[in-house]
Amino acid sequence: MRIDIISVLPELMESPFKASILKRAMQKELVEVYFHHLRDWGFGKHRQIDDEPYGGGAGMVMMVEPIDHCIATLKAEREYDEVIYLTPDGQTLNQKIANGLSLRNNLIFLCGHYKGIDQRVRDLHITKEISIGDYVLTGGELAACVLADAVIRLIPGVLNDEQSALTDSFQDDLLSPPIYTRPEEYKGLTVPQVLLSGNAQVIEDWRYNEALKITQEKRPDLLSK
Amino acid sequence: MRIDIISVLPELMESPFKASILKRAMQKELVEVYFHHLRDWGFGKHRQIDDEPYGGGAGMVMMVEPIDHCIATLKAEREYDEVIYLTPDGQTLNQKIANGLSLRNNLIFLCGHYKGIDQRVRDLHITKEISIGDYVLTGGELAACVLADAVIRLIPGVLNDEQSALTDSFQDDLLSPPIYTRPEEYKGLTVPQVLLSGNAQVIEDWRYNEALKITQEKRPDLLSK
Repeated sequence: MRIDIISVLPELMESPFKASILKRAMQKELVEVYFHHLRDWGFGKHRQIDDEPYGGGAGMVMMVEPIDHCIATLKAEREYDEVIYLTPDGQTLNQKIANGLSLRNNLIFLCGHYKGIDQRVRDLHITKEISIGDYVLTGGELAACVLADAVIRLIPGVLNDEQSALTDSFQDDLLSPPIYTRPEEYKGLTVPQVLLSGNAQVIEDWRYNEALKITQEKRPDLLSK
Repeated sequence: MRIDIISVLPELMESPFKASILKRAMQKELVEVYFHHLRDWGFGKHRQIDDEPYGGGAGMVMMVEPIDHCIATLKAEREYDEVIYLTPDGQTLNQKIANGLSLRNNLIFLCGHYKGIDQRVRDLHITKEISIGDYVLTGGELAACVLADAVIRLIPGVLNDEQSALTDSFQDDLLSPPIYTRPEEYKGLTVPQVLLSGNAQVIEDWRYNEALKITQEKRPDLLSK
């Protein structure tokens, strides 16, 4: 997989891609990630990339032309499966979307910033708009990191223990059951006896029932889907 | 505001806090952020902080004792308003939660990693569990960055233009209307005439109607709340 990330603040995304799973996925050459500084496509000696909104109001708008040129240049080099705009207005990211994107080859992530992008970028290029949740961030950069992490960890070979991704929350629309490790007792709090029983079937049943109970209590919406 | 972030991978969070709004908020001394490497609280010469789950299964579990010691040490130094565990099982973050947290003084963020934390950490310390969305990430580190960004930008004085935060998506449960900046025409795509009219009331009405239309089309759930 190849991901091209277009941003006015690529430096914000440095450390997440240098640590943990994302680093390992790149080292294993399972994914290539390229950052494109939008300012390199800006106008004039100040490399202008934003301007005031037509009709007035607070906040600056990212101009259509620099983004159009940047995306057009990338598209001339290879085919992209999706050009994704990270924006609070987008479709809310969920595990199913992440699963689907993990099967793609070439993706562009465009990070919104300031008040957002000129509508005409959407009209010309964007194939998918994704929001990581119903809250506002300073920019799309953290959202791009989140999306990259959610997607890349699903690519076969990235996680050491593939089983681990399949038993994660949301893969079966259930939250995880409680988990425990040593010691058996800590400050009077003990591990449930069933987990010490050694009976795999009984443990599996207990975990399923706990997961169901917790999901019913905390997120009944997941069960009614 | 003071935020203490406990993690096994604090280096993953370096760059987001060195850029943009978070950097500025810290420079202005509106927020202090401290990273605590959980391994500093680990056992023995290998600084162990995780172990296998009781009852078997894939993935490691973060042990109760190192986390308990770390949080207890912080709590001995000051009062915390919330001890927040970032986990996909938590309450789904939204703008209202972010607004509420932006009024607090001292917060602890605990980043889950591996398969999650020993249930007894939750029983002993956690006052709030937050998920940034229905998808699985490698760890709670990116979630902590997202939560910090969503909260810190709301603290008065952090954004240059306070008006800008108030007109963001979700503050009024409406998505944003389309925005445009120069040029008036680009590749045959033109700016809606109303935005060039100079009539503030007409523009405001148009924006409200567009926001309503877009929200009805993309996120009717926001209107029925």
